Amino acid sequence: MAKPTGERFDHWIDSYAKRAGSLSVSEVRALFAVVSRPEVVSLAGGMPNVSSLPKELITESFEKLMSTKGDMALQYGGGQGDITLRGQIHDIMALEGISSSVEDLVITTGSQHGLELLAGLFLDEGDVVIAEGPSYVGALGIFRHYLAEVEHVYTDNDGMSPEALEQAIAKLKKANKKIKLLYLVPNFANPSGVTLSAKRRPEILAIAKRNNILVVEDNPYGLLYFDKKPPKALRSIDDNVIYLGSFSKILVPGFRVGYVLAPPPIREKLVLAQESAILCPSAFSQMLISEYLATADWQKQVDTFRGVYKQRKDAALKAMKEYLPSLKTTKPDGGFYLWVDLPQGMDSKAMLPLAVKELVAYTPGTAFYGDGQGKNKLRICYSYPTPERIDLGIKRLSNVINLQLDLQQTFGKG
Amino acid sequence: MAKPTGERFDHWIDSYAKRAGSLSVSEVRALFAVVSRPEVVSLAGGMPNVSSLPKELITESFEKLMSTKGDMALQYGGGQGDITLRGQIHDIMALEGISSSVEDLVITTGSQHGLELLAGLFLDEGDVVIAEGPSYVGALGIFRHYLAEVEHVYTDNDGMSPEALEQAIAKLKKANKKIKLLYLVPNFANPSGVTLSAKRRPEILAIAKRNNILVVEDNPYGLLYFDKKPPKALRSIDDNVIYLGSFSKILVPGFRVGYVLAPPPIREKLVLAQESAILCPSAFSQMLISEYLATADWQKQVDTFRGVYKQRKDAALKAMKEYLPSLKTTKPDGGFYLWVDLPQGMDSKAMLPLAVKELVAYTPGTAFYGDGQGKNKLRICYSYPTPERIDLGIKRLSNVINLQLDLQQTFGKG
Repeated sequence: MAKPTGERFDHWIDSYAKRAGSLSVSEVRALFAVVSRPEVVSLAGGMPNVSSLPKELITESFEKLMSTKGDMALQYGGGQGDITLRGQIHDIMALEGISSSVEDLVITTGSQHGLELLAGLFLDEGDVVIAEGPSYVGALGIFRHYLAEVEHVYTDNDGMSPEALEQAIAKLKKANKKIKLLYLVPNFANPSGVTLSAKRRPEILAIAKRNNILVVEDNPYGLLYFDKKPPKALRSIDDNVIYLGSFSKILVPGFRVGYVLAPPPIREKLVLAQESAILCPSAFSQMLISEYLATADWQKQVDTFRGVYKQRKDAALKAMKEYLPSLKTTKPDGGFYLWVDLPQGMDSKAMLPLAVKELVAYTPGTAFYGDGQGKNKLRICYSYPTPERIDLGIKRLSNVINLQLDLQQTFGKG
Repeated sequence: MAKPTGERFDHWIDSYAKRAGSLSVSEVRALFAVVSRPEVVSLAGGMPNVSSLPKELITESFEKLMSTKGDMALQYGGGQGDITLRGQIHDIMALEGISSSVEDLVITTGSQHGLELLAGLFLDEGDVVIAEGPSYVGALGIFRHYLAEVEHVYTDNDGMSPEALEQAIAKLKKANKKIKLLYLVPNFANPSGVTLSAKRRPEILAIAKRNNILVVEDNPYGLLYFDKKPPKALRSIDDNVIYLGSFSKILVPGFRVGYVLAPPPIREKLVLAQESAILCPSAFSQMLISEYLATADWQKQVDTFRGVYKQRKDAALKAMKEYLPSLKTTKPDGGFYLWVDLPQGMDSKAMLPLAVKELVAYTPGTAFYGDGQGKNKLRICYSYPTPERIDLGIKRLSNVINLQLDLQQTFGKG
């Protein structure tokens, strides 16, 4: 791996594995320090609004858990996850049209770790993962960790383009690349906010099947639609799809509980990989969520979240229209994100320090590509700040962008 | 990888990564199903006795946490772990003579995940990890996952032999092997129960240093000594040692919280690897433990655990003396485990089904070696059953072993 740029001598520089060279400080990570300053309006990190959850719902679940199954919750659990919670997840997935079996569900430390374990099962160095363009930054980091290559496929307001997918596969096959996974966030995607249309879903699945590519459907936001449900899950159309779900957005992320539904032979390996990596997911977190689902009106709580996020999305779009009317953005039907097109020649990463000086933060578009694309894009996350703060943040952002536009017009495009 | 032996067709058989071939159902895993039947005395899985923890200590911590920092506990946290908890861990490590910095601590999903992340940073295919013989089954699984080779070094009642370590290194170097890690459980080791002597500690460290081998000290049991503290931690002698600690044994495993203390360049990479794998460890689990450490008399609670485990160790040794006086066992000064020598020619793995028929379970010795050694060894874990059940379990075990001995004497050694 390359020598680190810092001044400190690393005694172990020659001992690291090749994959350690893939680790780098991401754009998103650098932003975390900024986010924590209260005067900055952060439109950056994708944090859910946990303050919309009445804490007494958690307290009641905790008390019930400790009085009935305390010793079990504090002990090691099984490597596949709690069987009661798996049954409840089965019911949650049914809301998206998925018929599953508790035997094929694996509970993980957030769906992030589910994806990490899957990537470990499938990706050798040089293998290719096909993803939307743009795609989730955390997934790109995992694929990079396993020294895989990411091929982004053209994605518009209806999601990934089937024609572009066919072309990408043909190109990769011609180059003798081994395509292992097709990674998709079909609903209210991170970072674009777009949803794969009902028409395209079976088309994409048919292309993947014809080319023997395993489809991974990552769906943390599906239940957080604003007005109407998204099209049925890919997994509801094809049992060979691996489905990732999470409690981070429909409940809270602090418990780190997600899940994977996978075909039996893959699920078996996934459980073994999980046992190797962490022995077992937290019994306490799982059983607390299980009590919550059993006792609280959790669907009503999801409705509350949907209302909160819809209001914030409206505030973000309204502010964009008011302060930056010339810029194009996606119009999400759910989830947390707007994807903003800046004029050609602008560089959202270079602009970020100026934005922070104006007390607003966002995520630069390059974070969501593995190949340097996205320079004149940026992601706005509206899930966490109040509508008033969103308005203020986008107003501040417009000052920065308009100044850049003025400079461009005066001195020409850089 | 090899085709699976089951009958089900795996559509993805040609898609798996090479490392997926390293996954196999371990001896310990197969036992979990057995353990759950109440009529079986399980001397197998290394479960702590969580019922010795007064539940109100957890409830008080929970209430305090939710009333003061609920929103923060339910949200995503930082990738390195909660800063307050890191400060408290600093104080816990000071009890073992370690002076650390909160900057160099990383909180992980159990110390298992700490080891997994470390292995990912250092191990390429074919690299060698040197370990005690026998060594922790969960560590061996991780090293196998990264396609590393494990070299077991002769270990006696004073821990790993420095002479044998020198010889092993010389042999490996002659074979042009790349030795990356020296993995040690110096206190009340799993599975042997032995402790690395004070005299050998600096000797082992000097050999590692001379050969530029990174030492990983895994110490989940150090505070669970029976009468006198173990010698000072390896990390207290050499700042280059990577130290793994855990709350699973001094509090409870259900929260899945452990920690890694590592030299700064390694720690930086460890945080990045953790963020890639799981985004962040559970804020809720960490902050709950932090409240517990701040409000409960946790050292008194550790004293309670020490008393419980000492009593159970005494019960196990007494029963071994009574029912199996001809067998040699280790005499642990702390921790959870006895390591039992069976007569030559006996096979503890082959004997296990007979033991389960007699309603007692243990872990076969081969689980703790990467190279097939340990056939005539077995591990007894005395931490979980009551002293009466331990006595009953070892009595049952003696029926099985004595029958095997009779058969051997009648028909000759197999």
